[in-house]
Amino acid sequence: MKVLVGSPGTIGGLLLRISQFLFAAASIVVMITSSGFSNYTAFCYLIASMGLQVLWSIGLACLDIYALRIKRDLHSPVLVSLFVVGDWVTAILSLAAACSSAGVVVLFTRDVDFCETASYLNCKGYEISIALAFITWLLIAKSSLVMFWLLASM
Amino acid sequence: MKVLVGSPGTIGGLLLRISQFLFAAASIVVMITSSGFSNYTAFCYLIASMGLQVLWSIGLACLDIYALRIKRDLHSPVLVSLFVVGDWVTAILSLAAACSSAGVVVLFTRDVDFCETASYLNCKGYEISIALAFITWLLIAKSSLVMFWLLASM
Repeated sequence: MKVLVGSPGTIGGLLLRISQFLFAAASIVVMITSSGFSNYTAFCYLIASMGLQVLWSIGLACLDIYALRIKRDLHSPVLVSLFVVGDWVTAILSLAAACSSAGVVVLFTRDVDFCETASYLNCKGYEISIALAFITWLLIAKSSLVMFWLLASM
Repeated sequence: MKVLVGSPGTIGGLLLRISQFLFAAASIVVMITSSGFSNYTAFCYLIASMGLQVLWSIGLACLDIYALRIKRDLHSPVLVSLFVVGDWVTAILSLAAACSSAGVVVLFTRDVDFCETASYLNCKGYEISIALAFITWLLIAKSSLVMFWLLASM
């Protein structure tokens, strides 16, 4: 069994989960504090998707801490299959949420200049939140690929 | 070496590539024939992304036909690595394009009722094109997973 950077039950895996949790939580906080977000479905979906990501990452981080404390190996086929499904679902939902919100922000800023005319919209806040969601997606994509590689090489 | 459904150089792989080509081409045709699409960046990006998908899928389909005719095995590590990179790049771009366009269409139809007030927009056409793009993504995702599995199990 190869041990890749980001494998479950390792320090690298734990750091990856904590990073996912922090970036997803930051994305939610920035979006919630940006005025006018609740009128748009894409931004609400971004918050829901990042919320799911926060729950999944904090759960896996706790499992990593438990495995590191009692030195338990988390590389069983059943556990890795479970991680693969969870990571892939959250990764696809995160990318979908980030892209749909990015589509709306590009429409507002470039296509219809809505950000300049509607001053109550905090477009800068939306952009920062979406950038954080994309970083979260990169981190969960790394986890997903490591898990899939582990499963395929079992 | 396992031979999975959708492997390169097999009948299954060829059918998968032809399906990707057909759905991506259909998505482009429906979007181009929908009036008003060119004013929105997300819809133009969808056409560019589906165009790249068409080129990639038709190229791989030709390679599959060549391999089937001369009975050549396409499972070398170098070739599979190339297929993995190409499939993953096109899969991520397809999902990003479909989601960003879907975000804009949801904004038009649900959030601001722009489809009812602006009668020159063919919102039904946009929706069909995006649905076809999502089907294309499902097909390219299947190819990507098969290629990644093949590479990981080499």
